[in-house]
Amino acid sequence: MNVEIIAVGDELLIGQVTDTNSGWIARQLNLMGWELTEVTVVRDRKDEIKKAVLDAFTRVPVVLMTGGLGPTKDDITKKTLCELYGCSLHRDEKVQEMNEERFARKGFTMNELTRDQALVPDACTVIYNPVGTAPVMWFDRDDKVLVSMPGVPSEMQYAVSHEVLPRLRSRFNDHSSVRHATCLVKGYTESGLAIVLADFENELPPYIHLAYLPKPGVIRLRLTATGLDDAEVSSGLEIQFEKLTALLGSHVFCREDVSLAGALGNILRERNLTIATAESCTGGNIAHELTLVPGCSAYYRGSIVSYANDVKTSLLGVSSETIEQNGVVSLPVVEEMVRGVRHALHTDCAIATSGIAGPDGATPGKPVGTVAVAVACGENVVSKMVMAGTQRERNIERFTHSALLQMIDLLTP
Amino acid sequence: MNVEIIAVGDELLIGQVTDTNSGWIARQLNLMGWELTEVTVVRDRKDEIKKAVLDAFTRVPVVLMTGGLGPTKDDITKKTLCELYGCSLHRDEKVQEMNEERFARKGFTMNELTRDQALVPDACTVIYNPVGTAPVMWFDRDDKVLVSMPGVPSEMQYAVSHEVLPRLRSRFNDHSSVRHATCLVKGYTESGLAIVLADFENELPPYIHLAYLPKPGVIRLRLTATGLDDAEVSSGLEIQFEKLTALLGSHVFCREDVSLAGALGNILRERNLTIATAESCTGGNIAHELTLVPGCSAYYRGSIVSYANDVKTSLLGVSSETIEQNGVVSLPVVEEMVRGVRHALHTDCAIATSGIAGPDGATPGKPVGTVAVAVACGENVVSKMVMAGTQRERNIERFTHSALLQMIDLLTP
Repeated sequence: MNVEIIAVGDELLIGQVTDTNSGWIARQLNLMGWELTEVTVVRDRKDEIKKAVLDAFTRVPVVLMTGGLGPTKDDITKKTLCELYGCSLHRDEKVQEMNEERFARKGFTMNELTRDQALVPDACTVIYNPVGTAPVMWFDRDDKVLVSMPGVPSEMQYAVSHEVLPRLRSRFNDHSSVRHATCLVKGYTESGLAIVLADFENELPPYIHLAYLPKPGVIRLRLTATGLDDAEVSSGLEIQFEKLTALLGSHVFCREDVSLAGALGNILRERNLTIATAESCTGGNIAHELTLVPGCSAYYRGSIVSYANDVKTSLLGVSSETIEQNGVVSLPVVEEMVRGVRHALHTDCAIATSGIAGPDGATPGKPVGTVAVAVACGENVVSKMVMAGTQRERNIERFTHSALLQMIDLLTP
Repeated sequence: MNVEIIAVGDELLIGQVTDTNSGWIARQLNLMGWELTEVTVVRDRKDEIKKAVLDAFTRVPVVLMTGGLGPTKDDITKKTLCELYGCSLHRDEKVQEMNEERFARKGFTMNELTRDQALVPDACTVIYNPVGTAPVMWFDRDDKVLVSMPGVPSEMQYAVSHEVLPRLRSRFNDHSSVRHATCLVKGYTESGLAIVLADFENELPPYIHLAYLPKPGVIRLRLTATGLDDAEVSSGLEIQFEKLTALLGSHVFCREDVSLAGALGNILRERNLTIATAESCTGGNIAHELTLVPGCSAYYRGSIVSYANDVKTSLLGVSSETIEQNGVVSLPVVEEMVRGVRHALHTDCAIATSGIAGPDGATPGKPVGTVAVAVACGENVVSKMVMAGTQRERNIERFTHSALLQMIDLLTP
């Protein structure tokens, strides 16, 4: 089933807010075997919203709309939908009650604008929103379904997961079962991996599909099985996933769809190891990535961000001579940092970085984008110089990615 | 002048990549006084790309296209543009040479696919791309301009800044001068600020416009002046900006368009103060935000991320009794943390956080989303409990934002 999204809001078109909703919805549709075929981002203008809806319905039977449902007068999606469906607004008592309770609980008083969040078009089915004031509106006419949802990501996500997708499946009699299995692979380029997997892919049964999702140094492989018999789909997928991971052997370092930090976390948890980081140029971003993973306190103990050189000396025990002789962006320095932080935080493993994120700081022979990374597991220390690009923010990201991958490499050789 | 963007790529519609290009371009257009009126995201399909272009040209004279210019066979934008403009591809010698040099410099050999990056449609003007292999293609027919650019953000950004925008201004005889002045304001809600500024806004000359860009606890105010006489535009803007900031007095804590961490950095630099952070639940994210700011080494010395409780004790000197008596998410604990990190890193200022990002870790009376924040400047310590929401990643962001704002509050009361 093909779906389009219409994202409404001036804030998206002046670049104040990035539309992350569409990508999130795309992934959810994908997981249930449906396809997002187009996204249109329009301003808060009646004629532009209407035209976008009518155009979309010439191509697909389902349109998901996000945004434009706030209480202020620039949000005109609701009135526009009334015009499109030739109906009026009425007050929904249940929405009104829910919003009153919500405001009372928070100790706020409702003004006229927030009270009107309970006005809904006559032509729609109201889907109640327990996490916000704007209800979800479901329009179903001439075999075409339009669902209008709030643009606030948490509200949209709640509605999509709990209401919209289950209702769409049932509305379009989609009783198919869709299952996924994902693994993370290292040590291959995308094209190299495609050659190794050519026969496997050719021999896949027609109801199972393989997708490559590559990033530098790591490729996410996802098998998707679709069919009507859930047991068959599950067992077929399991067989192929076992075949795939057996084929790739130790190149597979994670059998779950998680972030790189999540994959490292799984390895640490399984092997009952703890970790710390000592960061200079990455400035806490490795720690941040590790702590985005729920439950990371099982293996992550903490970090020392030693941005100033004397902090490297005082808290991590790096010797001033090592810094003087090799420069602060050097393998000897990160090796001392990684040993120092392991010692200071009493962990089994550690990661250390020192580099030049830019725009300043380049030295002869060490341009912006240079980073020294050391990783340690017990007394075993491995260090490496890596080159990234010229943009500060992107360099910090790439240094982080590279350091996490290097730690995974040491633990899963 | 109105502009539309067409972003091309299956990866955008399966949610593998988030389209951050459109927002970036929107901000650049905005800064030069042009408007992005619609964004369409389409798959790598000839018919869909063609239809999107033809539709867009019924609405606007300028279409910027990103993506679909890679060397692999799924990238079909170039061939599609040939069909649209009724022309063929030819090899551009200069692109060929530049790419050969590029590959030689990196020590790679070119294969057939990368060699064909030098094929360009006859109907376009080629804009050379010094930072990637795909050139930018400029089509100009019937007073409508289409520019096709690579989807890689760094390549697109280079092209837009250095080539595309200057050429568009000249092509459409846009000799207007656009100037901006931005300040960051605290201590007002958006509606409260609008009341205070009502007269100021009404009295603005017609060529100057005020925009509100609100975030929790802080509102970015941007004045934009547009006109033909650059000197007049600049001086008019300066007068109004001085009037605005005088009106808001000490509510204005930054007179530059920077991030919250950048604003804090400016204050620290001006007052010659240094800073460190002690993070528990924010896990290094405050350090990360502070170190995203170029030149932060002038005031930022480092951080201790004390995720495990005994690290709070051993490295930050928090007493076990304080933790036992108050719980680890408490004002006494963050107050000891903030003093501890100031001492350990010898800084003037410090920020400390301890909270429950979720999904686990809630205790009676302290639900997920609770955070204790302490900030210090010299011996002066202020601490506060703050509530955020239920989602881990978003909580970490909100805790960080709140802690930075609290530090700014202490320094600019």
